[in-house]
Amino acid sequence: MSILVVGSVAFDTLKTPFGVREKILGGSATYFSLSASFFTPVRVVAVVGDDFTAEHEAVLTSRGIDTRGIEHASGKTFHWGGEYGENVNEAKTNFTDLNVFENFAPKIPAAFDDTHMLFLGNIQPALQLDVRRKMPKVALVGADSMNLWINIARAELLETLKEVDILLINDGEAKLLANENSLVLAAKKILTLGPRSLVIKHGEYGATLFFKDGSHPFRAPALPIAEVQDPTGAGDTFAGGFMGYIASQPKLTRSVLKQAMFYGGVMGSFTVECFGPERLISLTREEIDERFKLFVSLTHLD
Amino acid sequence: MSILVVGSVAFDTLKTPFGVREKILGGSATYFSLSASFFTPVRVVAVVGDDFTAEHEAVLTSRGIDTRGIEHASGKTFHWGGEYGENVNEAKTNFTDLNVFENFAPKIPAAFDDTHMLFLGNIQPALQLDVRRKMPKVALVGADSMNLWINIARAELLETLKEVDILLINDGEAKLLANENSLVLAAKKILTLGPRSLVIKHGEYGATLFFKDGSHPFRAPALPIAEVQDPTGAGDTFAGGFMGYIASQPKLTRSVLKQAMFYGGVMGSFTVECFGPERLISLTREEIDERFKLFVSLTHLD
Repeated sequence: MSILVVGSVAFDTLKTPFGVREKILGGSATYFSLSASFFTPVRVVAVVGDDFTAEHEAVLTSRGIDTRGIEHASGKTFHWGGEYGENVNEAKTNFTDLNVFENFAPKIPAAFDDTHMLFLGNIQPALQLDVRRKMPKVALVGADSMNLWINIARAELLETLKEVDILLINDGEAKLLANENSLVLAAKKILTLGPRSLVIKHGEYGATLFFKDGSHPFRAPALPIAEVQDPTGAGDTFAGGFMGYIASQPKLTRSVLKQAMFYGGVMGSFTVECFGPERLISLTREEIDERFKLFVSLTHLD
Repeated sequence: MSILVVGSVAFDTLKTPFGVREKILGGSATYFSLSASFFTPVRVVAVVGDDFTAEHEAVLTSRGIDTRGIEHASGKTFHWGGEYGENVNEAKTNFTDLNVFENFAPKIPAAFDDTHMLFLGNIQPALQLDVRRKMPKVALVGADSMNLWINIARAELLETLKEVDILLINDGEAKLLANENSLVLAAKKILTLGPRSLVIKHGEYGATLFFKDGSHPFRAPALPIAEVQDPTGAGDTFAGGFMGYIASQPKLTRSVLKQAMFYGGVMGSFTVECFGPERLISLTREEIDERFKLFVSLTHLD
């Protein structure tokens, strides 16, 4: 089944203890779609500027990603500059040049009307809701958000969440959104806001899947990695593997969701091994299956 | 197989968002031995003062724990006062009255000479080494430590580690001991110092078992708990379940170590549900087995 992602396609200028990279391809929709493309057909809705070349677009199309929803606007592409210190869990933003992204008004090509699943990447919640309503026929809606929107656009976010099936956020975002210090209580509260399932990502400690029906949660590991070269995009890559795997399955069962948690972790573990989306570009399905087995041996008793 | 633990038997005065308790039974050896006693015969070596009553000792003996190694010294029992705020992962120490513990010189009763396994609770590393050398016949040695000893007694700790098979510490302690920010690199370094296996505890995110032979690690979850009443003793309880289960098995295999990680997490999850060792005192083996199954369903694919 096809999945449509709306989010940012951007340039990142990055510095980590392992090196620097100038204006490389990035953005939530980029990581999500590259990751999901290993499992299912992917369609992207985003906006880029004049500096986004055919070569950049080819990174996506060479993975079979449908880029007809990428609008080419006049101006420059969204450009984020950031760095990570010894603690790779904390990014320091050096600059955020929104450029053409500032006035992003997502347009869904008519050809995308038959899309089965939707992922609302981390953009203004009102835009997320707009896209969601433009696609009333999708069977499943996933979404991401961030502290910024929880703080400055809470009302819009709460409206959006009413029409989201699966929300994927991290520890800090869950606690902020629910105003709760306990992750379990935060999850409980968030699951009254709309989503039927909630994935809370714990960075290097993995992620937990909570269910609205009160059944016990499920924990997926992250791979213990000696040297995280660049954590940028790990969360979006997780979401891409998670949603992409679900889209590849005929039915959404609890068992499928559990497998999806593992695939999310697997995909995220590849991304952080190299800078930007480098590792996703060189990746093969065989490597994914191999690492999936490693995740199983990492967590399963004999 | 029997296991001997050396550590503190103490009183704790605790404050958490869920209540206060004055001078209740605590200490690393108390939590460890209560936890391990569900799996294997346990012997304790510790020191207490005049205020440690027959009633206190009965908490241990009623679980079949051999308390002949508890020395009754003249003076008061070690008494720790601390509190936890909304973030239960951080304890604030209000007072540390070492009392008779200040001059603790562990004495091993002759009757304990045939002990199979040894656990060196979190005491001065030179004392740990002393006990370890007094028990040359034990088949397996586990140990705990803390930031204090890593900072002020590093040389002694490094000597002790040479004679330890399994070290159990938390994230911060591992990073401090190895002077590494990456947990995987820290683990690698620590596994050159003596231990063949290393358990790094991640609090609410579970724990990871690393092997010296370079084989891939193993991750055990922690139970997502809505309300942690009192986190005191959770680490020692984990160690007790982990080591106790190993002692109950005829052979130390990789499979046994993995099961032991789960039992450690299971036991820790009970302790934090109530104040002090209350929950361990009321616990049954059936409840442990039930929760073990929950841990499996929390982590295993269908």
